[in-house]
Amino acid sequence: MSTMQQDQQNTPDAASIRKRSIIDCDLHLAPLRGGYNALKPYLPRFYREQVETWGARVPGQNAMYNNGGINGSMQGRKVPPGDEAVMLDFLRADLLDKYNIEHGIITGMDYGINTTPDTEYAAAICSACNDYTIEHILDKEPRFKASIMIPKQDPVKSAREIDRVGSHPGYVQVIVSNGADKPYGHRHYYPIYEACVRHNMPFGIHVSMEGIGINPPPTGAGYVSHYAEYRLARAGIMMTHLASFIYEGVFELFPTLKVVMIEAGTLWIAPAIWRMDEDWKALRHHTPWVKKRPSEYYREHVRVTSQPIEMPHKKDMFLPMLEAIHADECLMFSSDYPHWDFDSPVQAFPKLPDELRERIFYQNAAELYGLPQRADNVDGGQG
Amino acid sequence: MSTMQQDQQNTPDAASIRKRSIIDCDLHLAPLRGGYNALKPYLPRFYREQVETWGARVPGQNAMYNNGGINGSMQGRKVPPGDEAVMLDFLRADLLDKYNIEHGIITGMDYGINTTPDTEYAAAICSACNDYTIEHILDKEPRFKASIMIPKQDPVKSAREIDRVGSHPGYVQVIVSNGADKPYGHRHYYPIYEACVRHNMPFGIHVSMEGIGINPPPTGAGYVSHYAEYRLARAGIMMTHLASFIYEGVFELFPTLKVVMIEAGTLWIAPAIWRMDEDWKALRHHTPWVKKRPSEYYREHVRVTSQPIEMPHKKDMFLPMLEAIHADECLMFSSDYPHWDFDSPVQAFPKLPDELRERIFYQNAAELYGLPQRADNVDGGQG
Repeated sequence: MSTMQQDQQNTPDAASIRKRSIIDCDLHLAPLRGGYNALKPYLPRFYREQVETWGARVPGQNAMYNNGGINGSMQGRKVPPGDEAVMLDFLRADLLDKYNIEHGIITGMDYGINTTPDTEYAAAICSACNDYTIEHILDKEPRFKASIMIPKQDPVKSAREIDRVGSHPGYVQVIVSNGADKPYGHRHYYPIYEACVRHNMPFGIHVSMEGIGINPPPTGAGYVSHYAEYRLARAGIMMTHLASFIYEGVFELFPTLKVVMIEAGTLWIAPAIWRMDEDWKALRHHTPWVKKRPSEYYREHVRVTSQPIEMPHKKDMFLPMLEAIHADECLMFSSDYPHWDFDSPVQAFPKLPDELRERIFYQNAAELYGLPQRADNVDGGQG
Repeated sequence: MSTMQQDQQNTPDAASIRKRSIIDCDLHLAPLRGGYNALKPYLPRFYREQVETWGARVPGQNAMYNNGGINGSMQGRKVPPGDEAVMLDFLRADLLDKYNIEHGIITGMDYGINTTPDTEYAAAICSACNDYTIEHILDKEPRFKASIMIPKQDPVKSAREIDRVGSHPGYVQVIVSNGADKPYGHRHYYPIYEACVRHNMPFGIHVSMEGIGINPPPTGAGYVSHYAEYRLARAGIMMTHLASFIYEGVFELFPTLKVVMIEAGTLWIAPAIWRMDEDWKALRHHTPWVKKRPSEYYREHVRVTSQPIEMPHKKDMFLPMLEAIHADECLMFSSDYPHWDFDSPVQAFPKLPDELRERIFYQNAAELYGLPQRADNVDGGQG
């Protein structure tokens, strides 16, 4: 039985889970309606004419690695043709209403633009995406929140883009691809973090574009051959960013900065912070500006989205592993809608203690993104 | 109190642990006595004269990343001056006798040679190291076993080197650095695995040389800044190799091949095999030659050395995590002597169930390397 079929069963459990609204921290509207042509009204003439003449020239990973689904998406999902208003209506029914999503965080559009060598072009496309998102999504459906795309190749210009659109109430996060030419703790990026702090916005890192465009190979052993290996490599790169933020002392420099690790898995964090804590004890004389144990920085500054959640072979390891990654403070539910490996809010998790479920499915994200509590204060599903 | 001081306490526990001999799967004799000059008698004149004229020109990671100890070693360890016989006497007292080591596996000399662009030179140095090891170590002290160094830049030549020295009874393993320009599942390496299978020897991968010499940057986000980050990145690269062996189908092609992951940590393997098993279910149509769940290949074909072992924040997670990585079949004790982060056999592990301890400290390695049982059959320490 497919996920979609199972979801449509109105079992008592599913119904009671749906009764209490949730926050979904990783939603995609891809593909952009009409592709890059949809961005043309938001581009300066110079780039509009380039896109018309040569196409969008944005690096992509699909030429290198098969995705799990065609266009990355779930099969059987029939989005009706039409403009953005039609798409929004479809998303309200197929996603927001169906799963009782109080707030849904859209995590960027096409991260390929983060990997082009043409930084000015990247800046123009990011601005166009951000303006398109305001006009067609954020101003039309308040349940959707979104992430600011930035031309991270130029951190100063990125900061300007955050300043330009960051006061829109629908923007709650800055977002970049996991693929990077430098780990995100590097001082190169600090103007971006200054802007994040100015706007009280977390810096989100979403898996994508590892080894693509201007990025180095996806692993320290070069290119992997298959998509399943690529998915595992992504966790390794996210781990690199996590360690980089900590060991470069970013959280000492920016004490209010929060970082979100999106779609790179979760349970690997446990052995990673165990390793870092042990090594910190032995090696902290190398990095005296790292004043606390790495796991403390993680708990205070890092949040993690759940999809794709690993499932231990022994099911009774799941809760202890959640505890080990401090899920009650750090884990936030995400479905990755509409991608092929979508984690349904109704099915992805085994039964959790109610308080923990509430942290993961609502409160951790509400605190991070400064989102209001449930409008109708329904507390069904507690039992 | 330092590790050395603690070890010298003859507490009842330590004494009873020492009573039952062990196998130590990761020992180093570094630095080579006299450095590369010691290899000159084993080099062809062409390279001997090069080493005399220009020095050894071997890439090293110490120019990039601080190690945890000076020359990587424990402080306070006073190796007396003298020739290799003096060194061996010191090692007998300081290591083999002190910790009751029945077999000690030496894991190569200087992996830098795995990263030089000069493949012919790499081949000459590897042969010299292997001959030096036979003459000065293996033929002098039967408790020491060793690993064959190979010029992995040229797999055919590597296979010839394995054939050249592989019949010496002291050689039990082929070894390469974790740093690599291609993941080790790549078909480029298959002549090496044919030779491993011919000689019934595992293929050992030892952390080192990530991002050095001809290798790509150590992470998919480029170069990390500090040694603690570098240590974490190493686990990511080992994870890449593990996935590569599995997804390229190497264990289907070479059903008797065993792989040893050395010094890259252990507990990260649990979430890695959970992730791979889930992804295999969803994505196995991409790699139909991968016939079993990835965790099954891991259990059957992969062995792991223990040092540096991660310690969960909650101590009661340690045994469940050992179970999750199938420690009873796959984990082999290693001390990493004489490196600064040496795991003492007496201290590194908390108390283990006796049967599990025996698997980890002796039997898994004895089975893998075809080593005899304890000579005196002492079974002290059972209680």
